[in-house]
Amino acid sequence: MKVAIIGAGAMGCIYGTYLSRHNEVLLVDVVKAHVDAINERGLEFVHLDGTTEIFKNMKATMDTAGYPAADIVVLLTKGYQSADALAANKSLIGPKTIVLSLQNGYGNSDEIVKFVPEEQIVLGTSGGGAIVAGPGHILHKGQGPTHVGCMTKDQSKAEIVAKLLREGGVPNVELTPDVKELVWSKVFVNVGINAICALMDDTNQCIANNEFARKASYALVQEAVGVVNAAGMHFNFEDVFKNVIDIALETGGNRASMLADVTNKRLTEVDRINGAIVSEGAKVGVAAPLNALMTNLIHAKEKLY
Amino acid sequence: MKVAIIGAGAMGCIYGTYLSRHNEVLLVDVVKAHVDAINERGLEFVHLDGTTEIFKNMKATMDTAGYPAADIVVLLTKGYQSADALAANKSLIGPKTIVLSLQNGYGNSDEIVKFVPEEQIVLGTSGGGAIVAGPGHILHKGQGPTHVGCMTKDQSKAEIVAKLLREGGVPNVELTPDVKELVWSKVFVNVGINAICALMDDTNQCIANNEFARKASYALVQEAVGVVNAAGMHFNFEDVFKNVIDIALETGGNRASMLADVTNKRLTEVDRINGAIVSEGAKVGVAAPLNALMTNLIHAKEKLY
Repeated sequence: MKVAIIGAGAMGCIYGTYLSRHNEVLLVDVVKAHVDAINERGLEFVHLDGTTEIFKNMKATMDTAGYPAADIVVLLTKGYQSADALAANKSLIGPKTIVLSLQNGYGNSDEIVKFVPEEQIVLGTSGGGAIVAGPGHILHKGQGPTHVGCMTKDQSKAEIVAKLLREGGVPNVELTPDVKELVWSKVFVNVGINAICALMDDTNQCIANNEFARKASYALVQEAVGVVNAAGMHFNFEDVFKNVIDIALETGGNRASMLADVTNKRLTEVDRINGAIVSEGAKVGVAAPLNALMTNLIHAKEKLY
Repeated sequence: MKVAIIGAGAMGCIYGTYLSRHNEVLLVDVVKAHVDAINERGLEFVHLDGTTEIFKNMKATMDTAGYPAADIVVLLTKGYQSADALAANKSLIGPKTIVLSLQNGYGNSDEIVKFVPEEQIVLGTSGGGAIVAGPGHILHKGQGPTHVGCMTKDQSKAEIVAKLLREGGVPNVELTPDVKELVWSKVFVNVGINAICALMDDTNQCIANNEFARKASYALVQEAVGVVNAAGMHFNFEDVFKNVIDIALETGGNRASMLADVTNKRLTEVDRINGAIVSEGAKVGVAAPLNALMTNLIHAKEKLY
């Protein structure tokens, strides 16, 4: 199958390498040095076991004008880049193209649905982690389960995607018909960890081990679950918060993506995480002042770059 | 008169030098190098106009056991040190000693009242600013008005203090019978500036100039005014917030005390500022979740030292 990965950063390259074993993979990115390195030397990929593999079977490009439609477009840009990225790469999207988003945060499908019908969208979450060490050079750091599901009752497109991922060697691929619950679950983890770690300049373990960071996390997640339940979901807060702490401990030494963004003076995904709680709350008339405060504090940080 | 300054940091030394012109001033501090430098070389004090004056007319000590009672004890420790500082220097407090607190934050009088009757307490606020440049070396950076008032209807003790400060050359000394209003006004300014600047690692101007820091400040001050009004005060929020912004601009280049504390890995006064809103709210059954979140975030920072 023809697969295009839009957003060939760390996560895009992980899924690109898996899928490239049995498919024709095109990596689309906006970083020229990265694209050039992949085309000239191949993608240097350091696996979880520390071994390095050079993938020369993928092409990379910054400009997809005139390219044929892909069977699957995997969208792995930052959430706030989704609309621009899809608009800039419209030629990849044909009438049957499946768009798979494994992006962080809530609200990505709101953008995707402007480009393809809901039936062709597969949403998911990935427990994977990776670092871009340099142009064309990726370090794979972790691989949790990958969950995928369709927004519609018909889950056939998610089944196609799951099969493709499993064939490529992605471990623990799970089909989740209730994709909304899935995406919110991931948002809660991010609400509980990301912005706090970004403000603390500390690794994920602080959420579990620093009693005050933990209290802050508790309050933010409690508000988030309240808002999302008011919008029609049925999460149990104590279970959700236990999961946040479990993941903070499991990934204890990791620097959360929002901390990495703030450290590297990049825009963060706070609007899709804490900000998503605020906007979801606004839809149902429930205020989310704590998550609004965190969103403002992170945006204030971005303004200081 | 015999004046003892308990807490001879930057602010303590400012008021010490003023009062030393016409009174016998004893500086009490816990930093040995600072105390020794003052006793050996005198206090090197850089005035607002840049000129340096060496004050050799003040004694400094770490141990006041056996010292006679002072007429005025000026308490200028951090708020959380008040009880320990008064207990350690009990000999300075006689049956007629006036205790003047110009400390930051709300709740300082709760500690002082355990050592002297309410009638002998004078509370106040200072718009002054200064930096400890090294042992026995103070840079005076700003001098706004000094407000003082008694907790009781009888304002005679505040009048004594005001006269003494004016005689010493303190500019703009004002008597304020409603000392509670005065102290809360200062707390609001600190709620609007301090913790945000500490998390942003930025100067006070960001509260006015960074639209997101300003939104965060707005929300925190709004909650604080709501709590304090529920506890019986009558502040107008828009006036209060205008004052926060005015002061953030006036002191634009300054690093707020809480930012200085976090930078220097010292405990902050957050419990007397944002935390005071939370505890005042608890007394009247009004929640203050935003100020609770900020209190936890600052305490989380302290835990990382």
